[in-house]
Amino acid sequence: MVWSRVTASRMVSYKRTMLMCTLGRRYFMTSGVRYGSSLVYSEYGDPEKVVQMTQQELPVVNSKQVLVKMLAATVNPADINTIQGVYAVKPSLPSIPGNEGIGEVLVLGKEAEDYFQPGDRVIPRLNAWGTWRTHAVADFTDLIKIPPDIALATGATIAVNPGTAYRMLKDFVPLKHGDTVIQNGANSAVGQAVIQIAAAWGLKTINVVRDRPSVMNLKQKLLDLGGTVVLTESEIRKSEELKAFPKPSLGLNCVSGKSGTEILRQLAPRGVMVTYGGMSRQPVTVPVGLLIFNDVALKGFWMTRWNKEHYNHPKRQEMLDDLFQLARDDLLQPPEHSLVPFDSYLVALKNAMPKDGMLGKKQILVF
Amino acid sequence: MVWSRVTASRMVSYKRTMLMCTLGRRYFMTSGVRYGSSLVYSEYGDPEKVVQMTQQELPVVNSKQVLVKMLAATVNPADINTIQGVYAVKPSLPSIPGNEGIGEVLVLGKEAEDYFQPGDRVIPRLNAWGTWRTHAVADFTDLIKIPPDIALATGATIAVNPGTAYRMLKDFVPLKHGDTVIQNGANSAVGQAVIQIAAAWGLKTINVVRDRPSVMNLKQKLLDLGGTVVLTESEIRKSEELKAFPKPSLGLNCVSGKSGTEILRQLAPRGVMVTYGGMSRQPVTVPVGLLIFNDVALKGFWMTRWNKEHYNHPKRQEMLDDLFQLARDDLLQPPEHSLVPFDSYLVALKNAMPKDGMLGKKQILVF
Repeated sequence: MVWSRVTASRMVSYKRTMLMCTLGRRYFMTSGVRYGSSLVYSEYGDPEKVVQMTQQELPVVNSKQVLVKMLAATVNPADINTIQGVYAVKPSLPSIPGNEGIGEVLVLGKEAEDYFQPGDRVIPRLNAWGTWRTHAVADFTDLIKIPPDIALATGATIAVNPGTAYRMLKDFVPLKHGDTVIQNGANSAVGQAVIQIAAAWGLKTINVVRDRPSVMNLKQKLLDLGGTVVLTESEIRKSEELKAFPKPSLGLNCVSGKSGTEILRQLAPRGVMVTYGGMSRQPVTVPVGLLIFNDVALKGFWMTRWNKEHYNHPKRQEMLDDLFQLARDDLLQPPEHSLVPFDSYLVALKNAMPKDGMLGKKQILVF
Repeated sequence: MVWSRVTASRMVSYKRTMLMCTLGRRYFMTSGVRYGSSLVYSEYGDPEKVVQMTQQELPVVNSKQVLVKMLAATVNPADINTIQGVYAVKPSLPSIPGNEGIGEVLVLGKEAEDYFQPGDRVIPRLNAWGTWRTHAVADFTDLIKIPPDIALATGATIAVNPGTAYRMLKDFVPLKHGDTVIQNGANSAVGQAVIQIAAAWGLKTINVVRDRPSVMNLKQKLLDLGGTVVLTESEIRKSEELKAFPKPSLGLNCVSGKSGTEILRQLAPRGVMVTYGGMSRQPVTVPVGLLIFNDVALKGFWMTRWNKEHYNHPKRQEMLDDLFQLARDDLLQPPEHSLVPFDSYLVALKNAMPKDGMLGKKQILVF
């Protein structure tokens, strides 16, 4: 029986966990059978309506598996869109949502023991792993161990958005110290990570945000994170501050529509705009002259694909190590967030929906 | 005096040339002063109105220069747009139009003698050289010698359009024998060159043309040139023939607008669309999902920039050698064209204007 492998010293915490979870009606064990709770949806639609809490019996951990207790799980826009059925990836239903989160290894299969120990913190190696659940039994190869000194909110939010920022800054245009990057949606989770990673690497950032009532506060917040310039969409064309900068060779676009076109216009000849989102729900309109005469290029980035293609690639561990070190050095903070108890998932789902096209604080489910 | 360097044997042909040109009131020489005729425009506007024929005294050839008698000069859409003032390049006025043409070396400066001989056929190395004139005195470094066995219409039309086709097929996506390329505007001068060069290199082409009354004839013409499939814009989405093909990894776009979007949709994941024109006068609309999830990229190509950047690069001579060899082997024909005497340039200008957005036969001025 797998349970018997658990060391005496860990048993205390397991018992505490079991007690806690049993009280919360989310995890309990009778006669060697374990149960966990998960959010699940069986049809695409409004997340607040189609997502439901369920209890399941957890499978017995086989030799290649581990039992993970989730500690925190992020609610990202891609999760919302996936549940709505409007995302590029349509999981087969019923499905447990959640692409990102941090868990703790409770129980290990024999083969997993060479790689993990009870108490190890882990994040999923693959997208669509389903982090919105109290517990998961998973192949150990589908998990990545992360350092124990990383704060929960950081660990739960580092893989998708800072990963996206890191790769876009690294993989498309060779940048050297002092170079400038322009981005729209600068207040998004990726945008904030871009500002911080760029600042840590000695890159300047021109940050474009949408016009809004309390824009001065937002500007100050992004400047405090390390942004070099923050401009609204309506300021960008007439900005004298911008004219003083050398044209950026890298543009990052998560808004698309007119905002994406404006990023393209700002690029240096041979510049590259990387599109990783379409928050305006509009396509990117590309003036032909920018392609032919300015020689700008448009590319796309999708962290999910990159992770799939670098499933076990050393570059992936190197990226995570870099990001964790930035977090330790206080150079990379998690986005503003609310920690929402798992039972109150409806609050998290409600708060994660864009209001007037704007996203509020990042919602992090805690268990 | 430069004239004295001309060998006795060449004098005969010069005298004949002079006689002919004098009769045509386009080139004459009195007391060592030579005159030539050129088309010139002093304001941007309707080519048929702003372009005028003028006579000038030709400067004396210095040691670095050659006197070239033009033999044939192409009227390309870029020439028309430049005169209209709607092209990316705005020459200072007054300006002699014409980017492409073939000439014959008449007189050489001392330093040029190591590189050219009288009678050599030459094409301009640079854009905006001004080929619409009977004679030109130019730095020898601005000319490229071409083989004597190349037909005039081929020599006059090979640098810009087949050059564009060659580079787009070679420089953006690694293609191997049997791979497929998709293009719109397949009946354009570049499009026809793409079909022929691709066929010579063992590549398949999916060729998209605009719907038009006599489309069956056009289809047959492009199939005869070596096209694999020819479809109209309205056929492309429902074509069963197309579904049988592996998705192309390279798309070539000279139409932009909806047609460009459709080319993007047809690309394989990671495919690249190279835009080299905007005949629809519409921007390219790029669905965000194609960038993020299909990982397609958009790039641009402009022969003028490539030539500038490869002014004296071995790749340029290699390209010309390849193209001339294809022409010799009857694998690359010049586009359908009309040879128009220089004096009748107004006819050429009229015929070079698009009718209902379609271009007619290529107009080649002959001298």
